Amino acid sequence: MNGAEALLRTLAAGGVDVCFANPGTSEMHLVEAFDRVTEVRPVLALFEGVLSGAADGYARMTGRPAATILHLGPGLGNAIANLHNARRALVPMVNLVGEHTALHLPKDPPLASDIESLARPVSAWVRRNASAETLAQDGADAVAAALTPPGRVATLIVPADAAWGESNGPVAPRQAPSRASVPPERVREIARVLRTGAATAILAGTIGLRGPGLRAAGRLASAVGARLLCGTFPARLERGAGRPKIERIPYFPERAAEFLSGLRHIVLAGGTLPVPFFGYPTISSEIVPEGCELHTLATESEGVVAALEALVDELGASRSEPILEPRVRPDAGSGSITPEGVARVVASLLPEGAIVSDEGATSTLSSMTATAGAPPHDWLFLTGGAIGQGLPVATGAALACPDRRVVALQADGSGMYTLQALWTQARERLEVTTIVFANRKYAILGMELERMAGARPSERTAGLISIGNPDLDWVALARGMGVEAERVESLGDLREKLSAALCSRGPRLIEVPLQA
Amino acid sequence: MNGAEALLRTLAAGGVDVCFANPGTSEMHLVEAFDRVTEVRPVLALFEGVLSGAADGYARMTGRPAATILHLGPGLGNAIANLHNARRALVPMVNLVGEHTALHLPKDPPLASDIESLARPVSAWVRRNASAETLAQDGADAVAAALTPPGRVATLIVPADAAWGESNGPVAPRQAPSRASVPPERVREIARVLRTGAATAILAGTIGLRGPGLRAAGRLASAVGARLLCGTFPARLERGAGRPKIERIPYFPERAAEFLSGLRHIVLAGGTLPVPFFGYPTISSEIVPEGCELHTLATESEGVVAALEALVDELGASRSEPILEPRVRPDAGSGSITPEGVARVVASLLPEGAIVSDEGATSTLSSMTATAGAPPHDWLFLTGGAIGQGLPVATGAALACPDRRVVALQADGSGMYTLQALWTQARERLEVTTIVFANRKYAILGMELERMAGARPSERTAGLISIGNPDLDWVALARGMGVEAERVESLGDLREKLSAALCSRGPRLIEVPLQA
Repeated sequence: MNGAEALLRTLAAGGVDVCFANPGTSEMHLVEAFDRVTEVRPVLALFEGVLSGAADGYARMTGRPAATILHLGPGLGNAIANLHNARRALVPMVNLVGEHTALHLPKDPPLASDIESLARPVSAWVRRNASAETLAQDGADAVAAALTPPGRVATLIVPADAAWGESNGPVAPRQAPSRASVPPERVREIARVLRTGAATAILAGTIGLRGPGLRAAGRLASAVGARLLCGTFPARLERGAGRPKIERIPYFPERAAEFLSGLRHIVLAGGTLPVPFFGYPTISSEIVPEGCELHTLATESEGVVAALEALVDELGASRSEPILEPRVRPDAGSGSITPEGVARVVASLLPEGAIVSDEGATSTLSSMTATAGAPPHDWLFLTGGAIGQGLPVATGAALACPDRRVVALQADGSGMYTLQALWTQARERLEVTTIVFANRKYAILGMELERMAGARPSERTAGLISIGNPDLDWVALARGMGVEAERVESLGDLREKLSAALCSRGPRLIEVPLQA
Repeated sequence: MNGAEALLRTLAAGGVDVCFANPGTSEMHLVEAFDRVTEVRPVLALFEGVLSGAADGYARMTGRPAATILHLGPGLGNAIANLHNARRALVPMVNLVGEHTALHLPKDPPLASDIESLARPVSAWVRRNASAETLAQDGADAVAAALTPPGRVATLIVPADAAWGESNGPVAPRQAPSRASVPPERVREIARVLRTGAATAILAGTIGLRGPGLRAAGRLASAVGARLLCGTFPARLERGAGRPKIERIPYFPERAAEFLSGLRHIVLAGGTLPVPFFGYPTISSEIVPEGCELHTLATESEGVVAALEALVDELGASRSEPILEPRVRPDAGSGSITPEGVARVVASLLPEGAIVSDEGATSTLSSMTATAGAPPHDWLFLTGGAIGQGLPVATGAALACPDRRVVALQADGSGMYTLQALWTQARERLEVTTIVFANRKYAILGMELERMAGARPSERTAGLISIGNPDLDWVALARGMGVEAERVESLGDLREKLSAALCSRGPRLIEVPLQA
């Protein structure tokens, strides 16, 4: 058995069942090994940014790593933006980056580059394999590294001669370390803080935003009268009717500061306080009120759920009921097209169990507001801030959860970064419905130009902020990649077409033109 | 004057007149400065891989650096593949990578990453600016670094607070080092080799493939009866009727070895011997015949043209005439569509002075063969091997040379990597005619699977090599980005549509379906 096959079999034994790939010549033995290792499903993407984002979406929904196959340094380079997002989202992922053979590399062939240097900024674990005999073990180590709490990006560099060389066969999965438990004294100390009755918020991180973690956090908040918060762009948030009510920290730092003002304590349950995206010349980026104390109940690598439940017990709050989001289906409305109107239509139709991949940028807030009381659903955010995530993450989430509908809420500017994801959706016949908010500009930059530089777009600088002239035709772009698509002219039209799309087989795209 | 304006003015003084940009919040002061620094033309691309490739194409045609504006680590990440190509093409380029403020960065905001680690593999010069006061000087140093022979990628990291902080104004351009001259004894030693009459080839690098360098190399070759060669993927090759005949080293190593067999000496005139792209398990990557000696007349950083001319003088060959390519316009033909047939149509219509951006992959060889005797033109190759170069380089070349026609010969698989380039072509109304060779597969990988792994695509692995199912509709994709496009059904049809496209204003795309 060659190294490639031993590696794939080892990944499969470690629970990897999907591999997003865009291979090149140096990865041909990995490709060939798929013929025999049928436990791993290969999925082609036409650009590597799609596959790193898809692996991220897959991991956000399953908690398990997908693998990727990337072609040397440039292939890894193309994947970096969405690997950055995956790193920030704390998801497990195993990247296999092809490399030249040991004999060939020293000659500095055209595609040679410093792969480690490219990999390290986006990977918690990087290893260069040294031989066919050790490739399977490296694969097992990569899976274990990826599954090390809270979830990590692991990158294994695979020389072509290791892939084709004779191996000793697959190796058994390595146990990943489990989450460290939180010492009881920390729980007691935080219980003491919560008992003071001072204005307090519980800020939940990844694990505290779903399932038992979210229930415990909600119970705790209601028992002690604390606010329950999440960061601005959590990796995955369970929300909707019947789920614990949660407040989201606003994006702009001055709004975030206002939002947090009056708090005396913030208890971090598996997260960190969100750091505003940018520093400004005249706007403070300090969002925590003066005198407010931060208390870490658990880091993301620790046993967050157990710590929250211990805290509930310590406070005798196990019978307390979280404040739940009431079921509210807004009326779809029928006026002219605005982000708020579109959000109402989405909220009126969002199916139970939907997964929303949100890269709506300036439309995110209205989308979230309108859907707060929609049937329970998951919301995936742009955690790392590198645009071009929405369509790929939707693709990976749909592969992970074939029995759930995926709705991608996509700004046009960021959608153009990785539009190739639509093709993979078409090929894999994924049930993804994409709504493109076509305002034909980087609307956020129009605001930030003023906030940062105190300027309004001039004729000259508007060209760097507007993406009109020519206008993108998303219907044509989607059809060009085999995805059925339509443009809507009114909210009524949107309601009708979205309704049909949500029942269709395979992907659909709806372009919603917004006033610029 | 703030740092951003001082920086842009300094770049302008250093000869930078185009800036390919995709800015974000941290680059807003650079955007704003364009209002006052009108000597630099800002050009928006909808994805960073387009702008790094466009800057490469611009530099290949002008010898001058374009600037880019990239948004933090992820923006740089998206640019990496084409920066890799630019590094291999030895072109000058100045990247401005926005960064968080000094106060904000230590908080590890979502978009923070190790920019240096990402930049180094693709940059010969990387600097992190330390203050607004030193930003202009850093810019001058970056331009000088970019212009250091033979041409380098320089990356300057620009913190937002340096861009907005008060500067001391622009600084004067710094003189870049000139090319080192080649010592006369080296010229004499190589003259001695050439006089032996043993089978010899002169291998010309970048500078030896155009203008006076090419003429001197051609004269030399004909005087001593040597073969005149170029590498497999030179950055830019002047060719066509009336230009010195030059043979190109084949791509596959076994073909290259055959091609070079019998040679006793290879004289390197500004280049290095091409290293084959990949090592194989059963095919040797050694292409130089045993016993063949390599002699470096000049490295790419040295005075290649002067050295070639000195050698011509030393050999008393100044009256010798190079062997020139005869003018041969093939008959366009009218049969069914094959890569050879398409190449003949292109050759029958290629305008004088055309710039061909070639990322035709498996169609490159037939395109080159057919156009050998077409009117003089430039050919730009995929020097670094990172696919997704063709459309961006065509874009930059068209901006650099508005009075010349650009023809992009584009394989469909690699075209999908950076298809967003079409939008910039439409916005800037560039005279680029793109021909998409739509064979609906990564055809080279079909060959390489067999060459590397001895396997033919199975039903399962074919999915990683074919890009059909669904077929891409390039006409729709192009129109979706504002580029007029058509599909052709026959060679006659192609002739008619290409003929019209080559006279049209603005970009056009023609999809040529090939039998899979």
